Amino acid sequence: MAPSDVKVQLLGSWASPFSIRVQMGLKLKSVEHEFIEENFYSNKSDRLLKANPIHKKIPVLIHSQKPICESLLILEYIDEVWTDGPSILPSDPYERATARFWTTYIDQTWFPIMKELEKAANDEAKATVIGKVIEGLVLLEAAFVKCSKGKSFFGGDNVGYIDIVLGSYFGWIKVLESVGGLKLLDGTRTPGLAGWAERFLSHNVVKDVFPEPSKLLEFYMMVKAARVSSA
Amino acid sequence: MAPSDVKVQLLGSWASPFSIRVQMGLKLKSVEHEFIEENFYSNKSDRLLKANPIHKKIPVLIHSQKPICESLLILEYIDEVWTDGPSILPSDPYERATARFWTTYIDQTWFPIMKELEKAANDEAKATVIGKVIEGLVLLEAAFVKCSKGKSFFGGDNVGYIDIVLGSYFGWIKVLESVGGLKLLDGTRTPGLAGWAERFLSHNVVKDVFPEPSKLLEFYMMVKAARVSSA
Repeated sequence: MAPSDVKVQLLGSWASPFSIRVQMGLKLKSVEHEFIEENFYSNKSDRLLKANPIHKKIPVLIHSQKPICESLLILEYIDEVWTDGPSILPSDPYERATARFWTTYIDQTWFPIMKELEKAANDEAKATVIGKVIEGLVLLEAAFVKCSKGKSFFGGDNVGYIDIVLGSYFGWIKVLESVGGLKLLDGTRTPGLAGWAERFLSHNVVKDVFPEPSKLLEFYMMVKAARVSSA
Repeated sequence: MAPSDVKVQLLGSWASPFSIRVQMGLKLKSVEHEFIEENFYSNKSDRLLKANPIHKKIPVLIHSQKPICESLLILEYIDEVWTDGPSILPSDPYERATARFWTTYIDQTWFPIMKELEKAANDEAKATVIGKVIEGLVLLEAAFVKCSKGKSFFGGDNVGYIDIVLGSYFGWIKVLESVGGLKLLDGTRTPGLAGWAERFLSHNVVKDVFPEPSKLLEFYMMVKAARVSSA
């Protein structure tokens, strides 16, 4: 098939949580697509710069030659276009607002705190950041109890918007746990989330698109080494 | 009517762009509601802390005693609940994604730059920030041309999501222009936006909820003076 005939393309990277979540959304809806690996950190392709000239970031979904940017918005788009498959967002407006609230919280508040872990200059600073990351997880535990209503996922019986968005960070949570000798997702402190994590990682939609933890760890060490040598 | 019988309440502040945009959304949909003025900067009420325990911020829409937080999400909620009135978001998924892209850009990229104006330490730093604010407006000019398709508003014949979100900052744009002796919205550089601004400010949905520029300026000077005296 010639590239111009391909209806759905995803410009992404195997290691990016933002890209992984879009892959999960497409998989949930059984949308056939071409995955185009872009360089995560540098040497952005002309194709990416043309598709996302404002933010110059992956992921970009290209559907009928039109680019859709920003992973949360791409998931909403997928849900609105491919209405045949299982829903990503709930149908009730209040539940939709709640799902959007938590995905926004995860991306704008919780994840930026987790990113600070790398920058923490000493053990004390690191402990403070870890405390905040865990505070966020405790809030998300309460959100899980409320949203799942005793079922397996935030989305109920199936994975939904919050599952996909929070779950997309799992690979990096595992890397940080491994590198820092930490336990972020703890069965005693956040039993709901710990159980959810296991179910999520073995879900059909997830396991095929989720990167190998060892491969992610290797990638992390490589990027870190490159940063140190160019600093 | 006893407060518990009121179906829709808005915890907001007359001077907050985030609150003003929700007022516009409710007005567009002709939703009767009780407006509850909250302190913008300090002394947060127990009511607000209970309604938005995570971010502790206005606006919060309370509908059937359930709180909905985050202004962009509240506008989506209003659009989904009160479907009888004019639409806030477009119906086409690609146009919805585009509208969400620009509202997210405005709130997360453009407005944070504008906020730096206050912190600029000297004329050079100020000129750099102004340059970036204007760069953003030039992007928004192009977005206006694309989204409005020759009609009056981003939303076409009527005000929509981008109109409400960008327009909610108008009061503060005018304050910054007035305080700094600037012209941010310029008819030569961004003719589409300049014309749009006039139409927007005289629109039914807008003019009744929009604060008087002189009142906003007074408020700005008061807050600034309070900051200086407490620094």
